[in-house]
Amino acid sequence: MLSRELRELAEGPNFAAFATLRPDGHPATQVMWVDCDDECLLINTEKHRRKYANVRNDPRVNVMIWDAANPYRYIEARGLVKEIIHGPPAREHIDKLSWKYFDRPYDASIIVSERVILRITPLRSSVHQD
Amino acid sequence: MLSRELRELAEGPNFAAFATLRPDGHPATQVMWVDCDDECLLINTEKHRRKYANVRNDPRVNVMIWDAANPYRYIEARGLVKEIIHGPPAREHIDKLSWKYFDRPYDASIIVSERVILRITPLRSSVHQD
Repeated sequence: MLSRELRELAEGPNFAAFATLRPDGHPATQVMWVDCDDECLLINTEKHRRKYANVRNDPRVNVMIWDAANPYRYIEARGLVKEIIHGPPAREHIDKLSWKYFDRPYDASIIVSERVILRITPLRSSVHQD
Repeated sequence: MLSRELRELAEGPNFAAFATLRPDGHPATQVMWVDCDDECLLINTEKHRRKYANVRNDPRVNVMIWDAANPYRYIEARGLVKEIIHGPPAREHIDKLSWKYFDRPYDASIIVSERVILRITPLRSSVHQD
């Protein structure tokens, strides 16, 4: 189960710095929308993205979510991509995220390949609050 | 030389997601203050921190700086820690950063070990603007 703090940050309209590992082991980081279910953090991406190739190659990731109202408050969750969800659930999920951040459905015209959900099990998370 | 966009984001009162590699290769990420000189990105930390041990062990890092006014605009800079600056210059630099973000000198009472500046050479940077 996710902690209360992690769940609260992941459910709110906050952003995540999503770190993956490139094939040579160098970390890559992007700003991403984020969500969660009862057990996992959820990142929605597309199959042609480097980050998708990275997690297929090495499931070790880091999801750092900061409070949009106060970036000094953030949670760093070190985790593993344990499942990749394809098809209609992933396509519906990007609409859900778009409603959360933009209050409208996702612009379908910008989908290049296939939407996928990365389900990430947090191994350890630490709360930072200055 | 840093690109104009990277320099602008690093000089402004923006935050960085600083990704380092733990000894087992798993990425760690923290929210950090950030700065730059003509050639390098600068991160100021303390010697007792895990991130300091991480970069001493493996200099491969990622500095992702987002625009505090618009997190959809960010630059991801993949880089290497090429130098670590100790002593008075590092101590003065944390005051400079504190003035940038808080408009006051750094609270000396919260320094636990020794301030150090990590000088990071960007190998490649990519601008994201949605």
